[in-house]
Amino acid sequence: MNVFGEKWTFTSFGESHGAAIGGVLDGVPAGLHIDMEMIRSELDRRAGKGMTGASPRAKNEPDEVEWLSGVIDGRTLGTPIAFIIRNKDARPEDYEWLKHSYRVGHADKVYELKYGIRDWRGGGRASARETAARVVAGCIAKQDLAQKGIEIHARLVQVGAETDPTKFNETIAAYQQEGDSIGGIVECTISGLPTGVGEPIFNKLQAELAFAVMSINACKGFEYGTGFGGVTQPGSAINHISGGIAGGISDGTDITFRCVFKPTPSTLKAGIKGRHDACVATRAVPVVEAMTAIVLIDLLS
Amino acid sequence: MNVFGEKWTFTSFGESHGAAIGGVLDGVPAGLHIDMEMIRSELDRRAGKGMTGASPRAKNEPDEVEWLSGVIDGRTLGTPIAFIIRNKDARPEDYEWLKHSYRVGHADKVYELKYGIRDWRGGGRASARETAARVVAGCIAKQDLAQKGIEIHARLVQVGAETDPTKFNETIAAYQQEGDSIGGIVECTISGLPTGVGEPIFNKLQAELAFAVMSINACKGFEYGTGFGGVTQPGSAINHISGGIAGGISDGTDITFRCVFKPTPSTLKAGIKGRHDACVATRAVPVVEAMTAIVLIDLLS
Amino acid sequence: MNVFGEKWTFTSFGESHGAAIGGVLDGVPAGLHIDMEMIRSELDRRAGKGMTGASPRAKNEPDEVEWLSGVIDGRTLGTPIAFIIRNKDARPEDYEWLKHSYRVGHADKVYELKYGIRDWRGGGRASARETAARVVAGCIAKQDLAQKGIEIHARLVQVGAETDPTKFNETIAAYQQEGDSIGGIVECTISGLPTGVGEPIFNKLQAELAFAVMSINACKGFEYGTGFGGVTQPGSAINHISGGIAGGISDGTDITFRCVFKPTPSTLKAGIKGRHDACVATRAVPVVEAMTAIVLIDLLS
Amino acid sequence: MNVFGEKWTFTSFGESHGAAIGGVLDGVPAGLHIDMEMIRSELDRRAGKGMTGASPRAKNEPDEVEWLSGVIDGRTLGTPIAFIIRNKDARPEDYEWLKHSYRVGHADKVYELKYGIRDWRGGGRASARETAARVVAGCIAKQDLAQKGIEIHARLVQVGAETDPTKFNETIAAYQQEGDSIGGIVECTISGLPTGVGEPIFNKLQAELAFAVMSINACKGFEYGTGFGGVTQPGSAINHISGGIAGGISDGTDITFRCVFKPTPSTLKAGIKGRHDACVATRAVPVVEAMTAIVLIDLLS
Repeated sequence: MNVFGEKWTFTSFGESHGAAIGGVLDGVPAGLHIDMEMIRSELDRRAGKGMTGASPRAKNEPDEVEWLSGVIDGRTLGTPIAFIIRNKDARPEDYEWLKHSYRVGHADKVYELKYGIRDWRGGGRASARETAARVVAGCIAKQDLAQKGIEIHARLVQVGAETDPTKFNETIAAYQQEGDSIGGIVECTISGLPTGVGEPIFNKLQAELAFAVMSINACKGFEYGTGFGGVTQPGSAINHISGGIAGGISDGTDITFRCVFKPTPSTLKAGIKGRHDACVATRAVPVVEAMTAIVLIDLLS
Repeated sequence: MNVFGEKWTFTSFGESHGAAIGGVLDGVPAGLHIDMEMIRSELDRRAGKGMTGASPRAKNEPDEVEWLSGVIDGRTLGTPIAFIIRNKDARPEDYEWLKHSYRVGHADKVYELKYGIRDWRGGGRASARETAARVVAGCIAKQDLAQKGIEIHARLVQVGAETDPTKFNETIAAYQQEGDSIGGIVECTISGLPTGVGEPIFNKLQAELAFAVMSINACKGFEYGTGFGGVTQPGSAINHISGGIAGGISDGTDITFRCVFKPTPSTLKAGIKGRHDACVATRAVPVVEAMTAIVLIDLLS
Repeated sequence: MNVFGEKWTFTSFGESHGAAIGGVLDGVPAGLHIDMEMIRSELDRRAGKGMTGASPRAKNEPDEVEWLSGVIDGRTLGTPIAFIIRNKDARPEDYEWLKHSYRVGHADKVYELKYGIRDWRGGGRASARETAARVVAGCIAKQDLAQKGIEIHARLVQVGAETDPTKFNETIAAYQQEGDSIGGIVECTISGLPTGVGEPIFNKLQAELAFAVMSINACKGFEYGTGFGGVTQPGSAINHISGGIAGGISDGTDITFRCVFKPTPSTLKAGIKGRHDACVATRAVPVVEAMTAIVLIDLLS
Repeated sequence: MNVFGEKWTFTSFGESHGAAIGGVLDGVPAGLHIDMEMIRSELDRRAGKGMTGASPRAKNEPDEVEWLSGVIDGRTLGTPIAFIIRNKDARPEDYEWLKHSYRVGHADKVYELKYGIRDWRGGGRASARETAARVVAGCIAKQDLAQKGIEIHARLVQVGAETDPTKFNETIAAYQQEGDSIGGIVECTISGLPTGVGEPIFNKLQAELAFAVMSINACKGFEYGTGFGGVTQPGSAINHISGGIAGGISDGTDITFRCVFKPTPSTLKAGIKGRHDACVATRAVPVVEAMTAIVLIDLLS
């Protein structure tokens, strides 16, 4: 439900306009130094600080992490690490109109059908705000991975039809001016992963990565190695391309996967008020890294 | 590791050239009638009976299911259902040469690195033969889903660059004649799924489906709803397309996803002897249905 | 590790002298009203308010629950419920001497050996303070169980050799005056549980109850039905006594189990300073009820 | 349900009078030599070969293990190990009378209420025959533990009121002659377990052991360390007795626990025909060792 992982687990909680969002990490080894500065910087990156087309809330609300347990003098104790980020800039009143209506393309209606009750205040659990907790968890995972020589780097490689990164801001700004939004593709590379990660049958490494990444809001697809594009190539031409995984198990070479994010359905053009992003894919980049780090550290635990 | 699911679980076991492959289903409700004829027919479909380009073993070895427990007079007892399929046509001698070598594009080497030991007899666990057990499990899942009004239908929609189904056999035959192989795309539609299936955060329905499907041998990508193609469309144009899932939860409409299968790396052209398929995507179709059924019945349990 | 349950899960976190202790409940159904008054009263009961022999900290520190998520207007949202209790009366300085020494009968040393680091401030995670979070979780479980007609009542039935409840305070006071401590036996009755709870093989109801109760600090034994005492009775005399469970499954009659708590090893007599209880069994009573409620609600979810 | 463990898992299947009972072990490391002779000998021990008061079936039916997967040349492959024991001496006709009646003290009725269907052939899953699969799994666990220097030894320490082992056979024979049955207490010692096994909060080592042992048919209680008897001792007298576990974590010293088994309710005196044991506790001894081994190897995996 709200727990990710088996041995290095991350429990996420919090509504976007409630008291706080946060998480509990269980299974983090003792003695790990936590780089608080990196966490701050990754949260800013997720918030879209200085990015074209990011929503005002994301830019204005500094995400301050409060550590409740599991850390003493900046080092982990081996006990559960609980942290929260208070929702300072919550504006439930902006969403009063949602009490009795559902937004197109949002989860408002299915939540009400599933639970019989709904936190109408800006999406509640379904809000992208929840990903801030993922980024904090991901930072701790990344720091542990880095010590093992494993690096994760994601980047935006396509916005709409545009594949030239120098033109991305321009493209996004154009959609924003029209009160519209646009999708994007994020590519992520894992380097330094040792051979042998992943299980042969159901828990293949690619299945675990797909599960982690497809759990991010607005993600509509995942591919690795030869991907969808490889369908037109004969076996003789591509049988040397492993994509870093053989039989579900890492083979020691770099792994590159790609995932696609749809544009947010909340646009001025669609008549939906609120604080929205013109291209959520830009802000998804650190979240893709975070989920990749979380799933890898769990597999390595 | 070798268990799929949380409440309706499927444990898979068996090497392709050992005594038997099989599975244990735990959590299947009591009193369900099992349609043995459907299981036979689905196993034939997986074996590629009558299909262009299917490997001889698949066609010649009738997969006979032996039921060991959990079923009395064709009805389930609510206790674990264990079944096996003996490996009658096992020919370890065909693979003697593999004892001291690794095949390109196969998992031979990573298995040896991961386990320090390897069943060289035709891939062992990594063989596609393991999917026969998935098909048996999937049939039981499908039968239970059908009673709930849920139907799953997969079909091949692309082979190489060809998208016209009437030309698929021709395309495959052409690659086979060259001792080569080719990939394909499978599309799968779920209809009748009630609203409310899937969890909002990590266990989003799309993440669960991706996990299930990406665990199939040779699968390199998964997409649903607007998919990768949707990246060029603005939010205003596609915000009404849910793909059957909102916020990770089924919304009561049909769900269609697509997945891509790479060509088998074992080709005569690559100098690899054995019994291989010219287009594994054809035989993946019932496996995609099986894994979809298994993941859905688990979510509904 | 720090998560209890499969479907209705309780994640516990917090060191006894850190910022806070708390928990996250996942899988609690939406729409449940939370009785905050009952939670306050159960926390007082656990704290030993007004009890003979309870430690000063327990009595002086009011446990105030702060709700972070999952609850709106006193009703559950179906999303994870996170709560914390701040450690107001934390006095790390009382434990400075523990930085470089281990207490007899305590977990200080094994923690350091297991984790390589230790929160010396009053036991950290090993402190009985952690059970306050269990009591909060247990209250929510109990409230849901009560709606289903299931009641749980635990009581102290033995203190040292004394089995007359009217003499318990007197007995405890006698040990306290000597700077010593004494054990006790708690008996717990579950009534209203429907037939069919528990699984036939490993997850027998008695195994689940034993697991839940034996996880409480200082608990050294568990028995139900005919228990240890039944060993002297022939089958013909006791084969009608089910103890409320047959083949691991509840049979619809009341279930009564007993568990024993050893005296705290921290006694003035043993030369250990700090704030301790003369008979922890008295304060274990609501914790036994809490763990029983938590395991039952999980089995019923 | 029918799976024990998290990382080294044991899935049990099979009805006592169906085709076979068996199991699947997942997570067993590759390269372990399996001592088939020890397995045979432990199965004989469980069957009560040569024991006073054991049921005729247990003595007459040689339990032959058939290995289906995961083992090559007597060594484990790291893949799931599936094994079966066929039910050669199944006599469903002996149980025809059970089709329409329930036995006192047995699980017949709750099974029917829970599942709506019941395998009346001799108890089905509820039969003690299922423990043969536990013994096979336990042997493999024990062999791996032995390599790590960990030994498990259980023994019968009480039969009825008798605590002198030389008089046990005599005591049992007396009850058998009267067509009655009697309970017993089994004591088990774990030696060589390293420090640090067990988790501090819910998964305390004593809770895991209790869970494993209380899952054995007819077990009514579990105690360790000072146990129930310690209730009369003051803290100052027993605070040096850890029972091998501190704060839920093994402390490197021997662990001794005790568990009680009630007499079988199926007695001639009670008018129940069939093949029964006069003292099931005798045959529980290897099962207690098996479950202890399984839970320990899982915690160490």
